[in-house]
Amino acid sequence: MHHFFGAIQIFGSIAAVSAGLDLGKEGPLVHIGSCIASLLGQGGPDNYRLKWLWLRYFNNDRDRRDLITCGASSGVCAAFRAPVGGVLFALEEVATWWRSALLWRTFFSTAIVLVVLRGFIEICNSGKCGLFGKGGLIIFDVSDVTLNYHLIDIVPVTIIGIIGGVLGSLYNYLLHKVLRLYNLINQKGRMHKLLLSLTVSVFTSVSLFSLPFLSRCQACDPYGSEFCPTNDRSGNFKQFNCPDGYFNDLATLLLTTNDDAVRNIFSSNTPKEFQITSLLIFFALYCILGLFTFGIAVPSGLFLPIILMGSAYGRLLGIAMGSYTNIDQGLYAVLGAASLMAGSMRMTVSLCVIFLELTNNLLLLPITMLVLLIAKTVGDSFNPSIYEIILELKGLPFLEANPEPWMRNITVGELVDAKPPVVTLSGVAKVSRIVDVLKNTTHNAFPVVDNGVGETELQGLILRAHLIKVLKKKWFLQEKRRTEEWEVREKFDWVELAEREGKVEEVVISRGEMEMYVDLHPLTNTTPYTAVESMSVAKAMVLFRQVGLRHMLVVPKYQAAGVPPVVGILTRQDLRAHNILTAFPHLARSKSR
Amino acid sequence: MHHFFGAIQIFGSIAAVSAGLDLGKEGPLVHIGSCIASLLGQGGPDNYRLKWLWLRYFNNDRDRRDLITCGASSGVCAAFRAPVGGVLFALEEVATWWRSALLWRTFFSTAIVLVVLRGFIEICNSGKCGLFGKGGLIIFDVSDVTLNYHLIDIVPVTIIGIIGGVLGSLYNYLLHKVLRLYNLINQKGRMHKLLLSLTVSVFTSVSLFSLPFLSRCQACDPYGSEFCPTNDRSGNFKQFNCPDGYFNDLATLLLTTNDDAVRNIFSSNTPKEFQITSLLIFFALYCILGLFTFGIAVPSGLFLPIILMGSAYGRLLGIAMGSYTNIDQGLYAVLGAASLMAGSMRMTVSLCVIFLELTNNLLLLPITMLVLLIAKTVGDSFNPSIYEIILELKGLPFLEANPEPWMRNITVGELVDAKPPVVTLSGVAKVSRIVDVLKNTTHNAFPVVDNGVGETELQGLILRAHLIKVLKKKWFLQEKRRTEEWEVREKFDWVELAEREGKVEEVVISRGEMEMYVDLHPLTNTTPYTAVESMSVAKAMVLFRQVGLRHMLVVPKYQAAGVPPVVGILTRQDLRAHNILTAFPHLARSKSR
Repeated sequence: MHHFFGAIQIFGSIAAVSAGLDLGKEGPLVHIGSCIASLLGQGGPDNYRLKWLWLRYFNNDRDRRDLITCGASSGVCAAFRAPVGGVLFALEEVATWWRSALLWRTFFSTAIVLVVLRGFIEICNSGKCGLFGKGGLIIFDVSDVTLNYHLIDIVPVTIIGIIGGVLGSLYNYLLHKVLRLYNLINQKGRMHKLLLSLTVSVFTSVSLFSLPFLSRCQACDPYGSEFCPTNDRSGNFKQFNCPDGYFNDLATLLLTTNDDAVRNIFSSNTPKEFQITSLLIFFALYCILGLFTFGIAVPSGLFLPIILMGSAYGRLLGIAMGSYTNIDQGLYAVLGAASLMAGSMRMTVSLCVIFLELTNNLLLLPITMLVLLIAKTVGDSFNPSIYEIILELKGLPFLEANPEPWMRNITVGELVDAKPPVVTLSGVAKVSRIVDVLKNTTHNAFPVVDNGVGETELQGLILRAHLIKVLKKKWFLQEKRRTEEWEVREKFDWVELAEREGKVEEVVISRGEMEMYVDLHPLTNTTPYTAVESMSVAKAMVLFRQVGLRHMLVVPKYQAAGVPPVVGILTRQDLRAHNILTAFPHLARSKSR
Repeated sequence: MHHFFGAIQIFGSIAAVSAGLDLGKEGPLVHIGSCIASLLGQGGPDNYRLKWLWLRYFNNDRDRRDLITCGASSGVCAAFRAPVGGVLFALEEVATWWRSALLWRTFFSTAIVLVVLRGFIEICNSGKCGLFGKGGLIIFDVSDVTLNYHLIDIVPVTIIGIIGGVLGSLYNYLLHKVLRLYNLINQKGRMHKLLLSLTVSVFTSVSLFSLPFLSRCQACDPYGSEFCPTNDRSGNFKQFNCPDGYFNDLATLLLTTNDDAVRNIFSSNTPKEFQITSLLIFFALYCILGLFTFGIAVPSGLFLPIILMGSAYGRLLGIAMGSYTNIDQGLYAVLGAASLMAGSMRMTVSLCVIFLELTNNLLLLPITMLVLLIAKTVGDSFNPSIYEIILELKGLPFLEANPEPWMRNITVGELVDAKPPVVTLSGVAKVSRIVDVLKNTTHNAFPVVDNGVGETELQGLILRAHLIKVLKKKWFLQEKRRTEEWEVREKFDWVELAEREGKVEEVVISRGEMEMYVDLHPLTNTTPYTAVESMSVAKAMVLFRQVGLRHMLVVPKYQAAGVPPVVGILTRQDLRAHNILTAFPHLARSKSR
């Protein structure tokens, strides 16, 4: 099966790259990469599904999850040309369930992305592809910055980190408010959505074209090596409203590609190029645009706005601290960008590597690491990371990474008791009972329990999808009996069983069939993960996260005649903090105390 | 508790760095880092243990494991000045149980190592510390190599990877044989150990000083920028036995520090510097030395010998393919080193980052990634990684990363049946029974089961260490009764309970006390991880790995009066492939079939 995996990954990666020609929108790229990977895993969208057998091999939860992780890392890699950064991003932020095989698989995906990118850049060298590939494999190359810092420079570095952490968490706070507002607006219908997007885009255009008028023209450096002034799509020193021989520094930052803006603001040995007012306007504008653009119905990312904001903040700080330090302003801009990202996204290793791969300056590494750690620590003391905030707002059933302390005070037994009683099926069940259970519940899995004389036996867990498959194939028995292995093999193959399709409403069953039986034993997962009812919810959550569970059976701690062998069943949804607190309000009170 | 953690890490990291002045011995450094971290976790060695309270906070399994991981990553960081590489090394190779908090903790450790290293290098700039710090933070800097490769160069890159993978797995195979031989020799006593080390060191010295005579002298390049010939401790173009104006290329590689040797062999635009015979001799010698040095009683690493071997192999391949490619020979050397390492150690992401941090050439990244992936894949098809081979030889109770396919055919119930019957304790147990159980078994944990009328209740798991603590503190009851919470709190605090010390033989108990009772309930872990007896061993192994288990209770799938609530108990040791095969020889047969 592994040789297929490689083939799939190549497809996924190429797709991610070909979609990734416009750089700097890491959000859509990660999204596109993941979507393509997921679609490939399913064989295509629902209506136009490819039915190739070898695609169906991946149609199971684990492989789909792996493919999505690979797709996300390919997306980051394509956006930043940062292959190792992409792997680490997937590791640190995307994957909730990690296994060592995934490490080299994501690594393989990003390697392929890089090879394909490299190929495109080579083809595009002739200039046929617009601005694509202009930066080569390293986007914001600052390797020529001569770094000259000493141990004493830890002080300014710490200040950058602390302020960056505060600003980052403030950004998270404000974005949360804005997104909640947008949620209300977007719920009102399509027109509202469209109007919102239009308003923001008009505001963006107006600001970008009017704000540069506020800036004072500056004289070009007659000895500079670059053209000045220019009016090209890319390039430095935009002329805008200035006379010949002068340039507008704010237009240089605003009326260019985002890449060039970052390159300009990261540039070193240019202490006079940007005025304080221009940087302040740029910073304020990007704060506003970053906050108000993210939630509207357009594909946009988080990385680049934050990098731009952060670099402006860093440069401003550099100017403010000018006399106390000998670190270059361009370096301040790089560190400012890193600190704001860590303050908002709370990643460490992956951001560090992405920055390394973006800037190609290994000597920056020690101070970047310090800035990231400080900013993350400061930010963590205020609010959760921006990704957690967005997940929470979207209401996705995402299990929290760490159990809350109050979860230790409640057992899975209590949680199960608060739910409706568990619905179990017998090992050999009547068809009518199965149809009844499927129609009247929405559960995705049911415990199978055999009742004997004076004893009960837990057989395992059967999935809704398998029950539907049984009904569809009409694999019914006239009498109540156990089946033989060959009977099962004849009817089902494992590729079918890995699929998760179909609804009970689609199945038509005659009255006569309703009285027949089904032997569920061969389709039962005989080894579900179980927990004794006295286990704390905190511990159960660790189990869910670590082994990637969907269902967990809760078994009693008593052994006696008449005790059911399974007390209940828990899902990811049941373990989410919000849902527990709804069922147990007193825990919320004890939490707030 | 987290603020303490930081303090500890700084200590651990500084210690690792200060021990890490001699570069290139990553083995000892990783070891030293881990040892110091482990000792700090325990508060010091057994005899001179620090009793500071805040140190004792870390005296529990999880924190000790985390500290050791941090120590190992600090060691790699100190050895290669590769902070991110160190983190990833710990992630990919060291840690069997990973959690997200560990990611930034290891990252923090390596950041501190880097700052301290940087400080030492600054202090040592004056030349007072010998050769330390000469390379700066980047050891084998090849950032000046102008990389000029095209998509067509994938062919030679693939060849490097394939041959590297074959050579790497061959190296693993041979090292396995040598280590088994050494195990036999070392078991014979200290004198044998000493003699073995002496022999190898004499052989090493003799080879290093005699082999250069086999090489032909070469004329110095009169227009070269470097001194030639030299006779210094470091530096290029060693004169050795040659007349003035000539140098001996083999002496240049052998009679210098390992760092300089790597730098020489990685150097680019020097196609004429090394002769084929010299490279062949160098490669053969380092193969032999690498194989025969690793297992003797000296601290030595795996990385640098393999880098040296690999770079010689790469350069040789470069010379052989000279006319078919336009890749520089120095680049071939770098890629050869990478391929041999991946072929032997089977790491991908961490090796990639370590190489990036060693060589400071981001443009190398795409081809390094490809070489690593190809070499790893080729190597994996022959034998396991060198680390797994060594772990296996050392007989450490290390749970395999992936379950073998035949483990799916056996259930934990069968495994438990093959063991001696489980020893359980009652919730309120007689002292004599506890002493009896502790003296006659070596188990580290016992299930606690209460027997009622017609029903039994699983209370949980109690640890040997806690039982011993109870006996030591003589926390006995005159009558058979349950205790109150305050009674327990009065007697035990959680720091004590986290310790794992003491032997039952050290406890003296009078005859009268033997007849008294202990209430085990308050000290019982009421929520042990459990598995139903029908769970397959493969699945149980995943559980052990993913949640870092030591003991797992096996519960029956039947519910009836008289059925014990726990069928048995499994440990990591029980789940090791070797031990299962000993108990179930037929599985080994079916495996070989």
